[in-house]
Amino acid sequence: MLLIKVGGGKDINWDGVCRDIAELWLSEPVILVHGASVLRDELAARLSIPVRKVISPSGVTSVYTDREAIEVFLMAYAGLANKRIVALLLSQGVKAVGLCGVDGKLWEAKAKKEILVRESGKTKLLKDNLTGRVERVNAELLRLLLEHRYLPVVCAPAVSFDNEIVNTDNDTAAAVMAGEMGVRKMVYLFEAPGLLRDPDDQGSVIRRIGKYEIEAFLPFARERMKKKILGVKRAVEAGVEAVFFGDGRTQNPVKNALAGQGTVIG
Amino acid sequence: MLLIKVGGGKDINWDGVCRDIAELWLSEPVILVHGASVLRDELAARLSIPVRKVISPSGVTSVYTDREAIEVFLMAYAGLANKRIVALLLSQGVKAVGLCGVDGKLWEAKAKKEILVRESGKTKLLKDNLTGRVERVNAELLRLLLEHRYLPVVCAPAVSFDNEIVNTDNDTAAAVMAGEMGVRKMVYLFEAPGLLRDPDDQGSVIRRIGKYEIEAFLPFARERMKKKILGVKRAVEAGVEAVFFGDGRTQNPVKNALAGQGTVIG
Repeated sequence: MLLIKVGGGKDINWDGVCRDIAELWLSEPVILVHGASVLRDELAARLSIPVRKVISPSGVTSVYTDREAIEVFLMAYAGLANKRIVALLLSQGVKAVGLCGVDGKLWEAKAKKEILVRESGKTKLLKDNLTGRVERVNAELLRLLLEHRYLPVVCAPAVSFDNEIVNTDNDTAAAVMAGEMGVRKMVYLFEAPGLLRDPDDQGSVIRRIGKYEIEAFLPFARERMKKKILGVKRAVEAGVEAVFFGDGRTQNPVKNALAGQGTVIG
Repeated sequence: MLLIKVGGGKDINWDGVCRDIAELWLSEPVILVHGASVLRDELAARLSIPVRKVISPSGVTSVYTDREAIEVFLMAYAGLANKRIVALLLSQGVKAVGLCGVDGKLWEAKAKKEILVRESGKTKLLKDNLTGRVERVNAELLRLLLEHRYLPVVCAPAVSFDNEIVNTDNDTAAAVMAGEMGVRKMVYLFEAPGLLRDPDDQGSVIRRIGKYEIEAFLPFARERMKKKILGVKRAVEAGVEAVFFGDGRTQNPVKNALAGQGTVIG
């Protein structure tokens, strides 16, 4: 089983991604997880709802999420992005079904109402944060769909153990899902040719990372990439054998990544 | 099997609807279809995207839908409203799964790119309209979910036979779905105590309409209610035995409707 996670950047070649998936889908089950961060930010700006990005004491960037932010999230991720991708896959002959983490408790998260953040050099406690970390996945629902040849197209938000809609880290969720579903291969697509030794040099792609040296590469990762590396580490710990980082902007983003044209981990 | 269709008004008592559904769900399969017109209109206003309402030569009101309007539709219906309802049902112990008509081609529609409308007393032809009439329903997907005790929470938009996302009339879609699924009872909830003889008199509820006299009651219906009546006619022709119109604003909207407190048709 193949899990493909595509970032929410604006230059992702979604036609190419969906064409590749349609081809792979003929020979193996696929789960697609997608982001929509750029759509979310654009929508928040149009609605004059500020996106408040916060940085944890360990340096990981995330979004502080109040009720309004969750609404924007639902609209951009579960509404606009998810259904557009489903329609693209349908037009490639793949019966796709879009779900967010709330549907059938697909992604159950432990709520983190209070979070520590670094702001202007100080560590602060933020309350009433509607985020959570995915701890449980409804593998039964995913299997049900896959067994009947429906391709699950999955996105945040998740649902807390108290049935509140919560924002969540996609990369952690994907890793937990990979573990529960017995996924062997994962593809991560984003707007870079792979993990870069020097983030300003597109030619400095790190070609290969062994499964026991993932953490050693954290210093090369900036902001959102840090989360991906942590997600990959978790996924590998959960049984994933190979993770392929690839460029989502190319003609054949998934196939290129699987051919090792980006960074191969594992 | 029970199909419940809830309108998109702002005063619908969703807590009550979901509580009622949780109780009924213990003894019979339920499909929930919902609108989100007020959310859609609010969002369109906030995004400064005008909602262009048009009236057909036969007097039925609908929304002219271009690409921007479809985006607002996806955000309000498939994003915000759908997932909020799913979360409410989850908190009532019902494993709900939210789908729009695009997912797995749940609602396949024949596109109507050109529509005739009445505007300032004249009949005009509008082009590039992204709407369609649902003709085919993916009953297999609905059955799959229901058999595994997942309650489908369904909304527009639909998908055209060319895999374009299209706005559609919920009431027609619900009727087609009822026919395909062998639904025997339907509940329609909205912001009125039933079909009114005099729309300005909440006490003038028509209590009973026979299955062969539905059309005779069309003159009592205004705007959106006309569509419901036409939808009901179609549903009854497709095999539905009884349709219950009820007030979505009460404490127990579904149970009250089933108890005949609104208008009973069939």
